[in-house]
Amino acid sequence: MAQTVSVKNIGLRGVTVADTKISFIDGNQGILIYRGYRIEELAERSSFLETAYLLLNGYLPTPDELTVFERTIVDDSDVPDYIYECLRMLPRDSNPMDVLQACVPLLATNDPDLRGEDRTANVRMAMRLIARLPVIVAAWRRISEGQAPLPYDNSLTHAGNFLWRLTGVKPDPHMAKDLDCCLVLHADHTFNASTFACREVCSTKAHMYAAVAAGIGALSGSLHGGANTKVMEMLLQLENEPDVSSWIRDRIDSGQKIMGLGHAVYKTMDPRAKFLKPMATRLAKTEHMERWDELSKLVEKVSVEEFDKRGKNEIRPNVDFYSAPVYFMMGIPKDFFTPIFAISRIAGWCSHIIEEKFGEAQEKPMLYRPQAEYVGNYCGLMGCEYSPLPDRRDSGD
Amino acid sequence: MAQTVSVKNIGLRGVTVADTKISFIDGNQGILIYRGYRIEELAERSSFLETAYLLLNGYLPTPDELTVFERTIVDDSDVPDYIYECLRMLPRDSNPMDVLQACVPLLATNDPDLRGEDRTANVRMAMRLIARLPVIVAAWRRISEGQAPLPYDNSLTHAGNFLWRLTGVKPDPHMAKDLDCCLVLHADHTFNASTFACREVCSTKAHMYAAVAAGIGALSGSLHGGANTKVMEMLLQLENEPDVSSWIRDRIDSGQKIMGLGHAVYKTMDPRAKFLKPMATRLAKTEHMERWDELSKLVEKVSVEEFDKRGKNEIRPNVDFYSAPVYFMMGIPKDFFTPIFAISRIAGWCSHIIEEKFGEAQEKPMLYRPQAEYVGNYCGLMGCEYSPLPDRRDSGD
Repeated sequence: MAQTVSVKNIGLRGVTVADTKISFIDGNQGILIYRGYRIEELAERSSFLETAYLLLNGYLPTPDELTVFERTIVDDSDVPDYIYECLRMLPRDSNPMDVLQACVPLLATNDPDLRGEDRTANVRMAMRLIARLPVIVAAWRRISEGQAPLPYDNSLTHAGNFLWRLTGVKPDPHMAKDLDCCLVLHADHTFNASTFACREVCSTKAHMYAAVAAGIGALSGSLHGGANTKVMEMLLQLENEPDVSSWIRDRIDSGQKIMGLGHAVYKTMDPRAKFLKPMATRLAKTEHMERWDELSKLVEKVSVEEFDKRGKNEIRPNVDFYSAPVYFMMGIPKDFFTPIFAISRIAGWCSHIIEEKFGEAQEKPMLYRPQAEYVGNYCGLMGCEYSPLPDRRDSGD
Repeated sequence: MAQTVSVKNIGLRGVTVADTKISFIDGNQGILIYRGYRIEELAERSSFLETAYLLLNGYLPTPDELTVFERTIVDDSDVPDYIYECLRMLPRDSNPMDVLQACVPLLATNDPDLRGEDRTANVRMAMRLIARLPVIVAAWRRISEGQAPLPYDNSLTHAGNFLWRLTGVKPDPHMAKDLDCCLVLHADHTFNASTFACREVCSTKAHMYAAVAAGIGALSGSLHGGANTKVMEMLLQLENEPDVSSWIRDRIDSGQKIMGLGHAVYKTMDPRAKFLKPMATRLAKTEHMERWDELSKLVEKVSVEEFDKRGKNEIRPNVDFYSAPVYFMMGIPKDFFTPIFAISRIAGWCSHIIEEKFGEAQEKPMLYRPQAEYVGNYCGLMGCEYSPLPDRRDSGD
């Protein structure tokens, strides 16, 4: 007898699964806070590595603490040779997110703190991941194009080095600062799907690398980090579209989404998008790529008007809507947009893994083990009647 | 102002997150059902591949359907060369679970169905994973010991081939059948931590490989699949212990767990353990390793008595307690116990991913995006006051 029971927690929306001290979102007012600080302030006044320090340690570093942290990240950024050797073996059309997900567990062996059970060991692992993820992403881009990975340049920042090693062009300080700002904005976002995946995996006492690889898998989905690539694909498709307004209206009329608009949590404009929008305009001028800025703003304007007409005035640009043209104008190929999300969010993932592992925000962490309502075949307590293989004649399909 | 709010759903125990048609557990009665069938019946009368067919398709195959399925699994078991080349590059002390987690996203590129959006494409991907995971695990064992991977032997079954390629010894049919039976018993277990991780990751529309890699990460934890290795480590430690009873009593008195006893869901003996216990006794006789069987039974007897005395009569052997000595007596090194769990559970993971992706048990699947209660720094809606870097003097720790 099949049982049909209504399920109330599909997607876990509104279900509180843990306490956290790491970040906070007010979705109605469009506010995002890391460890007590508004992201607007951090994006304007702190660097990504300073923000990573804040997320991991819970407080903003002193000048000395930041200097030590930054130097350690540089020292940790040497990726072991066997990673490069593996990258050279892979089919060149491998997706960068698949490659990144694979490399993270491979780094585990190389980490002297892997078996460390204390917070300090886990912070050191986190720093190695923050240091190495961008190097691997950039190296894969070069190797996939038949070129040698590029070396660290000590005249450039963390973000500047990533741009240089990814594109082969030394970025000017303004562009490097813009990317650094993007990394600040993407660094954490409470219990999004990838962070929840990291926390869920490490709740089994799996190590940080195993958990981060799960986060990368979740981020790759088009409903999560994969959305910035999808936004760019839409803009590229619209580049030669004679009537953008009609295209958008038709899409909305047929019930389809406009990529980069709307969010599970924000019911107003995403505070990160507010920051990225003027950045796109500024980059469009310096890089002489005004059409991408104009096209983005047209898509936003028409979409918002159309959604408003339909009473959906909560559908507003999210972080992906403007990060896509920003990255594109920085000369980054669209398949590398989601990996950039990862090289930033790694700071948040590791902070959440540490919080989960050490129960820093709750009395006692517990393995995530939810329930499901069984609605399948059910033939009494003894199960369905088993028919031996030779007696089966008809496909059950 | 810090907010302290009690959280009710830590670990999500008792929270129903979805419908499922795949499996069902009655934890009080010790019953486990796959797609309507009792596992006792499947373990006695079906093979692992027949069980995998049942889990993926929802019904037991006819003889013709099973023949086609088995032949496809054999054809799919060729692992692409670049995987072997990567394995040869890795440090030989890499943990097999880390290696397996890394290889899964690397297989994605090689799958012609990766971008397929329909159920059929996803079942084909699942079959490739079922075929390839055991080959990779066995190849890594060989390569990590400086030996060449062993070829497929068409005189052996799926389980028999795994044993041969892992250990270099062609197993007798009884031992191969025993391992096959273990694979049936581990193939699914509703919303355990690794299956939930798979479902959570694919709810972002990430592909099957990204989701399975998350499952492997969760399985590696010592509170989940890693427990069978921990059971064996305990038995090896007890091998030369003069007073096993005292050792167990002292451990329980000091509040520590006995590995392999107790379960998040079962409040009686795990039905899988009931099946594995006589298997251990049988293997002990044929392999002349009676002491491991005797030691296991002594640990069970003393532990159960001690827990009963303390009113904890729900703490009984789980699946890991007897799978550990069973695998050990089959000649499998203990670091490969958890990978064996993975080469079985892959059938369940993929079935759950397909159910999640296609909403087969519910109206509309939804990205898992839970809430957290923020209990960190909170300085009014404008956030904490930001102190510029040069002004910071004291560590906030």
